[in-house]
Amino acid sequence: MALTIEPDPTLAYPQHSFHESFSFVIVFGQFFGIMPLYGMTRKNIQDVQFKWKSFRFLYACYNIAGAFVMGAFCILKFALHGLMLDQAGPTSFYILNFCGAVQFIVLAKNWSNVLKEWSLMEMSMRGYGSVVTMKRRHMIMTTVVMTLALAEHLLFIGNAFTMGQHCGNFSLDSSDEIYFELAFPSVFKVIEYSPWKAFFVELANVISTVTWNYTDLFIMLISCSLAARFAQINRRLKTNRVMHEKFWKEIREDYSKVAHLVQVVDKHLAALVTISFFNNAFFLCVQLYNSLKIRSTPVETIYYFYSFGFLVARTIAVTLYGAWINDESRKPLEVLHSIPSEYYCEEIARMIHQINASPVGITGSRFFMITRSFLLKMASTIVTFELMFLQFGPLVRPGSTTSECVI
Amino acid sequence: MALTIEPDPTLAYPQHSFHESFSFVIVFGQFFGIMPLYGMTRKNIQDVQFKWKSFRFLYACYNIAGAFVMGAFCILKFALHGLMLDQAGPTSFYILNFCGAVQFIVLAKNWSNVLKEWSLMEMSMRGYGSVVTMKRRHMIMTTVVMTLALAEHLLFIGNAFTMGQHCGNFSLDSSDEIYFELAFPSVFKVIEYSPWKAFFVELANVISTVTWNYTDLFIMLISCSLAARFAQINRRLKTNRVMHEKFWKEIREDYSKVAHLVQVVDKHLAALVTISFFNNAFFLCVQLYNSLKIRSTPVETIYYFYSFGFLVARTIAVTLYGAWINDESRKPLEVLHSIPSEYYCEEIARMIHQINASPVGITGSRFFMITRSFLLKMASTIVTFELMFLQFGPLVRPGSTTSECVI
Amino acid sequence: MALTIEPDPTLAYPQHSFHESFSFVIVFGQFFGIMPLYGMTRKNIQDVQFKWKSFRFLYACYNIAGAFVMGAFCILKFALHGLMLDQAGPTSFYILNFCGAVQFIVLAKNWSNVLKEWSLMEMSMRGYGSVVTMKRRHMIMTTVVMTLALAEHLLFIGNAFTMGQHCGNFSLDSSDEIYFELAFPSVFKVIEYSPWKAFFVELANVISTVTWNYTDLFIMLISCSLAARFAQINRRLKTNRVMHEKFWKEIREDYSKVAHLVQVVDKHLAALVTISFFNNAFFLCVQLYNSLKIRSTPVETIYYFYSFGFLVARTIAVTLYGAWINDESRKPLEVLHSIPSEYYCEEIARMIHQINASPVGITGSRFFMITRSFLLKMASTIVTFELMFLQFGPLVRPGSTTSECVI
Amino acid sequence: MALTIEPDPTLAYPQHSFHESFSFVIVFGQFFGIMPLYGMTRKNIQDVQFKWKSFRFLYACYNIAGAFVMGAFCILKFALHGLMLDQAGPTSFYILNFCGAVQFIVLAKNWSNVLKEWSLMEMSMRGYGSVVTMKRRHMIMTTVVMTLALAEHLLFIGNAFTMGQHCGNFSLDSSDEIYFELAFPSVFKVIEYSPWKAFFVELANVISTVTWNYTDLFIMLISCSLAARFAQINRRLKTNRVMHEKFWKEIREDYSKVAHLVQVVDKHLAALVTISFFNNAFFLCVQLYNSLKIRSTPVETIYYFYSFGFLVARTIAVTLYGAWINDESRKPLEVLHSIPSEYYCEEIARMIHQINASPVGITGSRFFMITRSFLLKMASTIVTFELMFLQFGPLVRPGSTTSECVI
Repeated sequence: MALTIEPDPTLAYPQHSFHESFSFVIVFGQFFGIMPLYGMTRKNIQDVQFKWKSFRFLYACYNIAGAFVMGAFCILKFALHGLMLDQAGPTSFYILNFCGAVQFIVLAKNWSNVLKEWSLMEMSMRGYGSVVTMKRRHMIMTTVVMTLALAEHLLFIGNAFTMGQHCGNFSLDSSDEIYFELAFPSVFKVIEYSPWKAFFVELANVISTVTWNYTDLFIMLISCSLAARFAQINRRLKTNRVMHEKFWKEIREDYSKVAHLVQVVDKHLAALVTISFFNNAFFLCVQLYNSLKIRSTPVETIYYFYSFGFLVARTIAVTLYGAWINDESRKPLEVLHSIPSEYYCEEIARMIHQINASPVGITGSRFFMITRSFLLKMASTIVTFELMFLQFGPLVRPGSTTSECVI
Repeated sequence: MALTIEPDPTLAYPQHSFHESFSFVIVFGQFFGIMPLYGMTRKNIQDVQFKWKSFRFLYACYNIAGAFVMGAFCILKFALHGLMLDQAGPTSFYILNFCGAVQFIVLAKNWSNVLKEWSLMEMSMRGYGSVVTMKRRHMIMTTVVMTLALAEHLLFIGNAFTMGQHCGNFSLDSSDEIYFELAFPSVFKVIEYSPWKAFFVELANVISTVTWNYTDLFIMLISCSLAARFAQINRRLKTNRVMHEKFWKEIREDYSKVAHLVQVVDKHLAALVTISFFNNAFFLCVQLYNSLKIRSTPVETIYYFYSFGFLVARTIAVTLYGAWINDESRKPLEVLHSIPSEYYCEEIARMIHQINASPVGITGSRFFMITRSFLLKMASTIVTFELMFLQFGPLVRPGSTTSECVI
Repeated sequence: MALTIEPDPTLAYPQHSFHESFSFVIVFGQFFGIMPLYGMTRKNIQDVQFKWKSFRFLYACYNIAGAFVMGAFCILKFALHGLMLDQAGPTSFYILNFCGAVQFIVLAKNWSNVLKEWSLMEMSMRGYGSVVTMKRRHMIMTTVVMTLALAEHLLFIGNAFTMGQHCGNFSLDSSDEIYFELAFPSVFKVIEYSPWKAFFVELANVISTVTWNYTDLFIMLISCSLAARFAQINRRLKTNRVMHEKFWKEIREDYSKVAHLVQVVDKHLAALVTISFFNNAFFLCVQLYNSLKIRSTPVETIYYFYSFGFLVARTIAVTLYGAWINDESRKPLEVLHSIPSEYYCEEIARMIHQINASPVGITGSRFFMITRSFLLKMASTIVTFELMFLQFGPLVRPGSTTSECVI
Repeated sequence: MALTIEPDPTLAYPQHSFHESFSFVIVFGQFFGIMPLYGMTRKNIQDVQFKWKSFRFLYACYNIAGAFVMGAFCILKFALHGLMLDQAGPTSFYILNFCGAVQFIVLAKNWSNVLKEWSLMEMSMRGYGSVVTMKRRHMIMTTVVMTLALAEHLLFIGNAFTMGQHCGNFSLDSSDEIYFELAFPSVFKVIEYSPWKAFFVELANVISTVTWNYTDLFIMLISCSLAARFAQINRRLKTNRVMHEKFWKEIREDYSKVAHLVQVVDKHLAALVTISFFNNAFFLCVQLYNSLKIRSTPVETIYYFYSFGFLVARTIAVTLYGAWINDESRKPLEVLHSIPSEYYCEEIARMIHQINASPVGITGSRFFMITRSFLLKMASTIVTFELMFLQFGPLVRPGSTTSECVI
């Protein structure tokens, strides 16, 4: 709506705009080659730029290339040794992170548009006051998710090291060589080991892991910010309920603006949401299937349970944060239905119709809308698939006692 | 709505308020450490109190602790002997009852708020007359459910005793020792048997069993009371149909109030409903899977079929009672659609929109709403899961002829 | 609506009322102990009576008792020889037909009420003209379904006879004895064979088979008659579209009346529909599973494919006829949406709201509404269940070459 | 609406009517015995005729007969050698193409009606300008789909030839004989090989393959043309939003007309859509199951992966193009909700209600509507079925090392 109007600069950037509270999340991502934008720390959203010829873009390309190469090695391994269900995890992990990284570049290119829409909405909702706690919330969530992810990655490394000591047949190699051969079997069975290759592989792995977690975090934080706006409208509805038509007109227009913003954001997030859900669902299946595997060391057991628990928690968190928007967007209904008849007016009727007719929420490329009931459906589908996977029985490679040493 | 208004005491407590007809159910629960409230037998709802420092709260804590310890023993057994599908039943039973018991304390803390909302609604619906038969209905349902549950528990004890006589290798122990070792294998394989331990274990078991049945009963009774209010509105709609706008305004406002009450109650019941459905669904799967087990004594056969039948009946009963609210809340539509055009007014249109836009009902933390079609979906999902469980085949422990003697 | 008004006899019974066109279907059923009513051939619906003390009621009781005894024998066989999936078919067949026969008595008792509601609707819709072809349609459908059912039963008998000749070890018995021992193994393995027992068993079997087909036929015919009424309204809507408000008021009221009638009929049919769908779905699963069985004679192969094809066709027919009501009830929407604005009025808006808010159709005890998309869901569920059943593999009884001779 | 009005010829056929841009697609089909119509290249839609006595109709009959005979051979093979899951693909392929070819004749007979409705809509929407790029779009899509299909068929032929060289036991026959015996085992195991038979078989196969791809292409192109019309309305809505009631009336009527056209087209396409989806879903299951088969030559591997990828891509394309209509038809909602209150009028309210009440889209005989969420459901169902198929394990024919040589 009225996208061409030049927003009044003094009003458009209130003290805690979305841009300000969210920018540090993007800056954080840039350390790992995600969202290659310049000017994030500047107050004015018009300084936010995407530059094709820049180090950040190059770094993002490295992210993409890394995931691509790792994925290619995994597929190569399939071509050589046949499809193995427990190896499908890493493959899909790299392929989907490759897609995710590409999507983040596309998003970065369009980010200034998103910010413009957002600031228009913020300007129109000045009266509600800014969501002051949002910045702290963003920081806490980022810290929690990323710390947990770091712990998982450290366990992954620790697991590979322990495995090296556990299996005797690697005794001639140096310690780090053993680690890399065990952690990235699909790579170092094909090409020769050398330290600089190992560095690039490890970097690609770290960046992919961060991209994976960052995608989920990104969806959570955006959902959070959008839901908070609906929550503001609901709070205003609840506090001064009985009022003249002008009030309802305002409320309805604000509601429409936030709903419109959700749609704009959804259009840009669509691919990321689909990638995130597909990735999580697929990984859940693979991890559940891996529960049948015999774990040889305690570190492996801890790694398995921690990584599985983290995965489940993160998937649920993404869904619930995404569903929060839909939840909040339906809450005005209760208040609107209870307006006494003398204050009831066309505006209220329109708003009720709008809430009913056009469900608001983050969707996975419009294939599904994230709601609470969707979580239940997804869970039941994953369990169904899983029970069938489990019937293929544990993967037994003939002639190996501890399956992990034979890569 | 208008929560701060001090209700007129002479009107707020009509002869058969919800508080009065329901209080005995809560008192019954208190014998088993559920809903630790004081002042339930008093007429005035303001006397209902939750006290942190009180015997009842302490007893409720024992309930929680008991379920927790028993659950911990079950998990310990898994850690020692590996995961066994037929043992997953007791484990989830204790864990979910632990959650349930905690939830009941949370609910007890908020119970006075629920009662206040309820009495507000009752006050506004004085004209409809109180639901006189509700108290008797509550009593009958409580008696029926609890008697059936008692019979199940006695069969459980009887089964363990018979098993003791059936298996020869316990002949050196005393009769009660055999019972406890067979009934609670996860406990007395780990710690030494002694009478006082046995007492606490048996008490924890009885309390957990009651909590389990009480959760379902609680949901049924609450649903029943809420549905009865919608039924009153429907009855009034059917008897004096053709009337002026003021009548419709009244009806609509009453409907809104009951719908609002359902939402308030739903918010407080949410966790309990989720726990109840998850517990029942999981137990149904485990029990169906156990149908493959070879039953060695007639008592075991009777116990199995009785306990399974009771479980199915209770699950269906909870769902149908829960769905009753949704059913009744949609019934006004038929009358509203058939109002002759000369009496049709804004109020009727608003009510039709409200019924359509905001489905009313008890939900499982908003993941699902309990409706009749939900029962069908749940049944089909359970059957699907079950057919896949059954394909894992009966659990055969090598070297045992009668599987039950080897614990 | 206005149930107490005494309908004007000269108008209430137009030449082809539902009562008249449907009565012969009920008379047909009475030959097999279904719908024990008196006065069906009389024109006046007030002559239709249900008599407790009458031969027809007694015969209906024989129907119930027969299905009950046969079901009991089947269960007894399970108790003696263990649960066998391929024998679950006959058992559920008798148990569900027992329920069906009981339901038909309940329906017979309430039939006069249904007829009263129906004649009220017919009276109000006199202007539309009676559905003259309905009687012929009823007759054709009854003939087709019952002829196909007869063919199936003859194949069943022929199959049992052929089986007798195929298996040598029955050579000492007389031909009919062999038939009965092969056709009703659950009975004549338990009790001694004697001609009069065989007569009652065969009679019970024939009546149960008819009840089974009659249930589906009944639902089809009723659905057909109801859908035809909606079709009449749609036809009138399409022919004289552009008209004054009074026309829309009439149309809306007629629509409401038919919708109300559907609800009344649905309430009385609810149990029958549930039984029918459960029976068909269960039988489909069992029959698909039986496809794995080795068929020893050509007659058996023909019997199997014919009976399976008939079952599938009948299930689809019941669903499509049931869904027809829902289809027709939504059709006015297209016309209503295309009314030019100058003729648009409150009545049209109300009708649109009504069609949207209250879906009309035959439901299975409100657990599901019969629609076209329900057929798809049911098919997908049955296929899912079936694929899992098939994984249990064909039922092989050790020591038997042709599985059928060993009963 | 107003079907009898004779359209003004100078206006009814604007430069790029649907008839003109689509006719070449039909002409293309006629080379393969599909849509036997005369007068497709003429500008006037009244020249489009279906002739019973014509070469094109005869050719279409050959198409039907060919698919029928091939299907009969496949069924015959089942009857002789038993049901084999991997052979179910060709059978269903021919049977469904037989149905498809019949449907195309039915559609050809009704095509002039469809064109009439379409030109009425085009006439009424003259103001929007014609969709100039539609003809190019149709051409590109036809070329892409058909080239990919050609590549698949060439690979199929190449595969059969390579197989012939791979298997030694065919060395006595000539090269083309080997090809035909390997490519059409169900035919030439039953009847003797001779060149003229081979010609008819190959022709029938080519035509069936084209029919299969043409069905999907047809649905895509039609959906595309319909969605483009909704897109035009949406574009007009977005550009001149704030306007008087007359504008809204026009928009609403245009929307209604396109929605009506969709319904008319859907009625005629219904069977084709159902056939297409069933065919694709079934083939996907069979192809996924065939992934277990051991592929003996590289050509076979390439053929398998190419044909599988093409199948998946085509199925997704059909669904997404079909869902596009539904997507576009819901888009006006956003604009309509954001109309400022001063311009809000009855017309807008009606349009919102219409969009809500009557979902627009291509349906599979009303069993399902093609939407984006349907794609997700279909995918999840196919995966579920597939996982169960896979559990039956790979099809091993005893005594054969390379399964393909033994036909």
